[in-house]
Amino acid sequence: MTFTQMLAAASQKNDSLLCVGLDPDPAKFPAHFQGRTEAIYDFCAAIVDATADLVSAFKPQIAYFAAQRAEAQLERLIAHIHERYPGIPVILDAKRGDIGSTAEQYAREAFARYQADAVTVNPYMGRDSVEPYLDWADKGVILLCRTSNAGGSDLQFLDVGGEKLYERVARLAARDWNRNGQIGLVVGATYPAEIARVREIVGDMPLLVPGIGAQGGDVEATVTAGRTAMTGGLLINSSRAILYAGKDENFAAAARRVAAETRSAINRYR
Amino acid sequence: MTFTQMLAAASQKNDSLLCVGLDPDPAKFPAHFQGRTEAIYDFCAAIVDATADLVSAFKPQIAYFAAQRAEAQLERLIAHIHERYPGIPVILDAKRGDIGSTAEQYAREAFARYQADAVTVNPYMGRDSVEPYLDWADKGVILLCRTSNAGGSDLQFLDVGGEKLYERVARLAARDWNRNGQIGLVVGATYPAEIARVREIVGDMPLLVPGIGAQGGDVEATVTAGRTAMTGGLLINSSRAILYAGKDENFAAAARRVAAETRSAINRYR
Repeated sequence: MTFTQMLAAASQKNDSLLCVGLDPDPAKFPAHFQGRTEAIYDFCAAIVDATADLVSAFKPQIAYFAAQRAEAQLERLIAHIHERYPGIPVILDAKRGDIGSTAEQYAREAFARYQADAVTVNPYMGRDSVEPYLDWADKGVILLCRTSNAGGSDLQFLDVGGEKLYERVARLAARDWNRNGQIGLVVGATYPAEIARVREIVGDMPLLVPGIGAQGGDVEATVTAGRTAMTGGLLINSSRAILYAGKDENFAAAARRVAAETRSAINRYR
Repeated sequence: MTFTQMLAAASQKNDSLLCVGLDPDPAKFPAHFQGRTEAIYDFCAAIVDATADLVSAFKPQIAYFAAQRAEAQLERLIAHIHERYPGIPVILDAKRGDIGSTAEQYAREAFARYQADAVTVNPYMGRDSVEPYLDWADKGVILLCRTSNAGGSDLQFLDVGGEKLYERVARLAARDWNRNGQIGLVVGATYPAEIARVREIVGDMPLLVPGIGAQGGDVEATVTAGRTAMTGGLLINSSRAILYAGKDENFAAAARRVAAETRSAINRYR
């Protein structure tokens, strides 16, 4: 099954466009995790167990694992998701981008080592920096297009001859690079008008939208701008607002409650 | 000592603008490495030991370690360089790029975990995605500007209002982002005219130039275009042509010979 099919099936089964981002910061864990050897795995697995029937995907952010020397815990976490919740896709948020020979190594990292179903990739180095990921025919490749941070405008909003750079990225991705239907795009919730613009350019392509929750993006505006007839064509990510909803032993229940509320808030506007 | 000072001192001491890239691909190692538990470390440490008096920096490419589950060997390799060759800077080639909170984690990965002296960063997400690295005041931050691969032109060569995108990146880096003298730029050897253009824009800023050797860039054109009065202002990277110069037990001597020739070829045009 391809990533796109997997995403559509998970989205349909769980009636959800919600992607839960797994950004484990041990300083924010409930007190009873302090001192545990595998605290990162334990915390993330508890979040996964509490929310797996509410999501269309999970998105671990590799930086949080790498900073803590916790690659083995990330491997174990993704294996746990695949074993316990088969059919829920895992997007490795890594934003890699490098020349072809190096991109081959990063693709191996994401897809062979971590067994991710999709990976996020930075488009700045162009087509041949993206192709090694596309060579993994069943996997998804989610390119940065319009990011949710303030500095995103520094380059992405530049006019490149009648359109903005992010529009050019969307156009290149949809028209030239997506020969096998594997590509999706990252478009931040902080710019709903630009989600709508990207949707116009790329048709039903999956859009991964970070920036609601802690980053302040508006759910109604995001869903209205990004929704599409294709199941799995919109993925709205929330990380911190769900992970750290509770501060004590009930953190998983609190995470579940916020995830359920977020799923409902999203579904209200589909 | 800051990265820039360290780079200048190493360049002067070893009379070298050569950066040796450490891209360990076990499939290309000499036969006697096969089956060793720490083959990646052993191979790279042998290359380091054979070339450390010929270089101005080493640049491990993290993808090659990550694909092989060899993060611990990368830590050990960088520690080996710092212990045995103090003063030779280590640039972690990771091309990270993410929102501020995530960039903080990547900065911790590069500078605290791996003890790198500089890291390569992708500018696509703009200023606030670069700042968390700059908060490490002694460390270097080397931004992708004009990359050496064919697809580099897809975005970097777009006209953004009287200049190309890569020129805008150079201008933003030099004029707006480099408040503490920590920034360098990656400019590929495959485009000497563009190295010269970047040099015009950024003055003495360190330029890291990949693409000679296996990628075919011309040494004379590269040095002529990129040289500057500032020691350490130009770093010319070679990886595969040095690492895999020999295929048998004499691989380290072969690597040394090619590194010495490359240093000399570069110095001829300084």
